Amino acid sequence: MTSSKMTIGVDIGGTNIRAALVGEDGELGAHIKFRTESEHGPDELIPRLAEHLRGLIAQSPGEVKGVGVGCPGPLSSTTGIVYEAPNLFGWVNIPLGDRLSEALGLPVRIHNDANAATWGEFWLGAGRDVGTIVMYTLGTGVGGGLVIGGRLWTGPDDTAGELGHICIFPDGERCSCGARGCLEAYASAPAVARRAREALASGRESSLSRYPAEELTAHKVDHEADAGDALSIEIMQQTAEYLGLAAAAMVNALNPDLVIYGGGMTAAKAWLFPVIERVIAERCFDAPAARVRVVAAELGDDAGIIGAAGLAMSAL
Amino acid sequence: MTSSKMTIGVDIGGTNIRAALVGEDGELGAHIKFRTESEHGPDELIPRLAEHLRGLIAQSPGEVKGVGVGCPGPLSSTTGIVYEAPNLFGWVNIPLGDRLSEALGLPVRIHNDANAATWGEFWLGAGRDVGTIVMYTLGTGVGGGLVIGGRLWTGPDDTAGELGHICIFPDGERCSCGARGCLEAYASAPAVARRAREALASGRESSLSRYPAEELTAHKVDHEADAGDALSIEIMQQTAEYLGLAAAAMVNALNPDLVIYGGGMTAAKAWLFPVIERVIAERCFDAPAARVRVVAAELGDDAGIIGAAGLAMSAL
Repeated sequence: MTSSKMTIGVDIGGTNIRAALVGEDGELGAHIKFRTESEHGPDELIPRLAEHLRGLIAQSPGEVKGVGVGCPGPLSSTTGIVYEAPNLFGWVNIPLGDRLSEALGLPVRIHNDANAATWGEFWLGAGRDVGTIVMYTLGTGVGGGLVIGGRLWTGPDDTAGELGHICIFPDGERCSCGARGCLEAYASAPAVARRAREALASGRESSLSRYPAEELTAHKVDHEADAGDALSIEIMQQTAEYLGLAAAAMVNALNPDLVIYGGGMTAAKAWLFPVIERVIAERCFDAPAARVRVVAAELGDDAGIIGAAGLAMSAL
Repeated sequence: MTSSKMTIGVDIGGTNIRAALVGEDGELGAHIKFRTESEHGPDELIPRLAEHLRGLIAQSPGEVKGVGVGCPGPLSSTTGIVYEAPNLFGWVNIPLGDRLSEALGLPVRIHNDANAATWGEFWLGAGRDVGTIVMYTLGTGVGGGLVIGGRLWTGPDDTAGELGHICIFPDGERCSCGARGCLEAYASAPAVARRAREALASGRESSLSRYPAEELTAHKVDHEADAGDALSIEIMQQTAEYLGLAAAAMVNALNPDLVIYGGGMTAAKAWLFPVIERVIAERCFDAPAARVRVVAAELGDDAGIIGAAGLAMSAL
């Protein structure tokens, strides 16, 4: 790591905070991980974060030119203010960018965590050779991010890329966002588990029935599908149909090169991707359907760190 | 018209072709309109078009620097080739850009007609003061176009902006594109008329029943809604719900400044817009919902001419 333009990438999660030195070409250097423990509020957490980052900076004295932070939103990448971070206690209108910048004496850029991860995949991951990507993150929720013509598209309010809240069923299940029938209410990991529980409760036979209802997870549904359980296969394929409907709308709208899926549920890609590809082929115009490829994210948990660092680097 | 950088904008439609001199600031000069009459094929139509355009050029000798053409697609704005123009007889893989350019001795840029109209509204119409617009054209079909961060986004295959083919009902009506349940299958003008006929056939009482079924149009449904007919009001409001679902998905995805509706059915905006606004408020995150405005297109039939001219001007 002798890069002359090194940055630090930070990924703030509800449970852990991870950070690493990132070189000019995205190579990862020293990294740290510590518990978020946000219960004491931002006035305790931000100085603690700064201290950890000073430790990283000290490993390459004089080399670190800036810090990029991926943080749960809503927030403003322009002003560096976090309006609200649902999983961080007491985070309301926190000027995270300014406070970290003052503490470290370095420029700091903050971005929505999903957007940072999307930029990471675009820069060095699954999207590194293309211009336009639609990215979904399948986990507790269904997140998203867009790179359009080589630019991260965050919108004027840093809220663009909320791809999990496209409507799949106008009068469907209530979503965590308050609306009805969103993709997230059908295709997030908890939604997949809920749909499995509902099917079992309706009397469907399945090897899933050997688990207590409260222990059913999307991972177990994937596992039982792999073992040949008909209901589990049906649920995974139906999940893929929903994901395909949403992806097809974005393929017709944006004519992207790639649709990338990241997050824990991507482990089920052998069930998901063939169906998603079929739905795109059925629902999209010929040229965009022929161009687009459905792929898995490549950077895993590092996407956010790398992307946040890369965005800070570009801004320097 | 003494602009030193004048272009000609051309709008090729299935019925008429319209063209005009367009000044540097978008001011319209002399214009022409003639029947497309494509039945003799492109080898007759393109020279005839060139002759008409030479007549326009002769009105400002030496001033016209280029020609922009809006044409039904699919086509390539990069190579100037029209792959297929559904309403133009015999147009398959026609190098329209090159052929017009050779005939006129001027640079020629071609664009999808919906994209040209979107750029027109962005440059000089409803979107002239903003950065990001989602535009729908409500007519025989439901077309669309996107300007994202000040750039017309056409995608690598010039197919971006196909916003009418988002899925509203997964197992719904068959759409002209071959898929099921697209917005276009519910909210185009013919779809509105079809839904009215279906409601009447099912025995619903309505002042619409005084028209022969084959004479029912979206315009008549709008008219009867204005006169207080309950079924017509219901159909217009339901149409707006569908449009709102589609718009809300794009507002969450792109965080635009404006959603613009153009095309004939925008005459029903008093019925459509309040419902679309409510659905966006219900279904979108707070910040993008607070930002976005729902407005009518302002340039009418001139949007395509102005937009095509503006795109050619930018490329010169």
